[in-house]
Amino acid sequence: MTPFADRLHDAIAQKKSCVLVGLDPRADAMPEEYQKALSGSRADAADAVLRFNLKVMDAVAPCAVAVKPQSAFYEALGWEGVRAYSETVRAAAERGLLVIGDVKRGDIGSTAEAYAEAHLDLIGADAITVNPYLGIDGIAPFIKRAAAGKGLFILVKTSNPSSGELQDLKVGEEMVYERVAQLVAAWGKESVGRSGYSAVGAVVGATYPEAAARLREMMPHAIFLVPGYGAQGGSARDCRPCFDRQGGGAIVNSSRGIIFAYGKSRGPGWEKAVADAARKMRDELEAVRREG
Amino acid sequence: MTPFADRLHDAIAQKKSCVLVGLDPRADAMPEEYQKALSGSRADAADAVLRFNLKVMDAVAPCAVAVKPQSAFYEALGWEGVRAYSETVRAAAERGLLVIGDVKRGDIGSTAEAYAEAHLDLIGADAITVNPYLGIDGIAPFIKRAAAGKGLFILVKTSNPSSGELQDLKVGEEMVYERVAQLVAAWGKESVGRSGYSAVGAVVGATYPEAAARLREMMPHAIFLVPGYGAQGGSARDCRPCFDRQGGGAIVNSSRGIIFAYGKSRGPGWEKAVADAARKMRDELEAVRREG
Repeated sequence: MTPFADRLHDAIAQKKSCVLVGLDPRADAMPEEYQKALSGSRADAADAVLRFNLKVMDAVAPCAVAVKPQSAFYEALGWEGVRAYSETVRAAAERGLLVIGDVKRGDIGSTAEAYAEAHLDLIGADAITVNPYLGIDGIAPFIKRAAAGKGLFILVKTSNPSSGELQDLKVGEEMVYERVAQLVAAWGKESVGRSGYSAVGAVVGATYPEAAARLREMMPHAIFLVPGYGAQGGSARDCRPCFDRQGGGAIVNSSRGIIFAYGKSRGPGWEKAVADAARKMRDELEAVRREG
Repeated sequence: MTPFADRLHDAIAQKKSCVLVGLDPRADAMPEEYQKALSGSRADAADAVLRFNLKVMDAVAPCAVAVKPQSAFYEALGWEGVRAYSETVRAAAERGLLVIGDVKRGDIGSTAEAYAEAHLDLIGADAITVNPYLGIDGIAPFIKRAAAGKGLFILVKTSNPSSGELQDLKVGEEMVYERVAQLVAAWGKESVGRSGYSAVGAVVGATYPEAAARLREMMPHAIFLVPGYGAQGGSARDCRPCFDRQGGGAIVNSSRGIIFAYGKSRGPGWEKAVADAARKMRDELEAVRREG
């Protein structure tokens, strides 16, 4: 199996895009055509979410390399929602989109192994997000799947306002998140593919560009998954430090900014607004990526 | 609604037990009677897991105050497994057992809100475990449910061998996990009930008793959820620092050591070994709890 990082690298080169679309279906922001089902049974609501995702993926597929369903919004619809999540992952693959399951799991030993089994083997995401608080015990089962073409993105510096409470604590001359970056760099060494990138990526928020620049140097082989663009306040320019000199090594996420781009115009034709938003994001980022 | 900590406190006093039973169903360790179903379809396997859990809960209910299903093992059975997880939570409540969903979720803003909705409101666990790496943004939605009688346990010092990689980093004179303990103490201040304990508890491993003693002082209002007893190497004595002077303020988890207590004797009558193991654990811990 081609390593995950190489598959992602190839998709970026082929589509000339580093756009990652977050599939965070919130009922109150979804188009009119789904509102009746969304206020019905959980099975109906979950089915509406799946149908919405299929249309979103069709709209963004030309301009996006990957999608990132956020598990929480599916779990909130019960097991019916988890089924819709699984079917979304499958449908993304059919559309040639890579899938990063945003599950932020983090547990130890055989429990982490069960999560890897659930999300990478069974549901079949190409990669998932993982929390580093428990150390390598919680990471090893995911790294083990690198040989099967799977990847992971470890939370390093997240995009939210309170990310600093723990991540910015000073450890000697460094921050906690810099120490995590060192671990990520070490954990990824064995799985560097021909693209120069490894199966062990890092989540680095666009909202902290100075931190991103240092982190880019500290983790030369880690693909960055960059949240915080768009609705959260990060600009394309803010994302530049996340890319390497050739403009590679990072994918930038937008969720609300793409999938709900139609705003209050929730009638027929909403798909065009979604497609346009993805294209605009791609173009903005391509302009920035090409700068040295 | 009675606050979570008070409900737990009352259950401990009434049952004279601080035993928490981890429901981590691993197919290869389950009794013979389920093996056929476990090797069948995912729906059959999930159903077998639920039936096993029901018998385990019947066996341990006299000696345990709560159960802790580990989400990973259910997710590994797909959405059918998530359904079995939900039904397990419901069945525990019917048996008068409190339920702590071991989900270790950690995300931000509306995503954390969706997780709280999923696990506390919809599935209906009394409390869940939460990861602190993202700061208060990831915690607030769970604390908000304190008024509805719900609780949370924040990972502070976990029981696994590599927990120190991040948790033991030195921040000035303190460790990262001690700084997390200070946050937990601060976050819990508003929800202290008549028992003296708050809705914001802490996960503190039995495998690090010296750390536990300091943490007990730093978080006087946090109930400790203590993993690491039994199969992971922690003794009843190792758990003592997790209790307050009156022997309150902590629940001790065992998973494999209880639910698979029958070992290789997987034929009929396995429930007795499970019940006996729970009673033995209760007695060992009661002896230690009563010491000043």
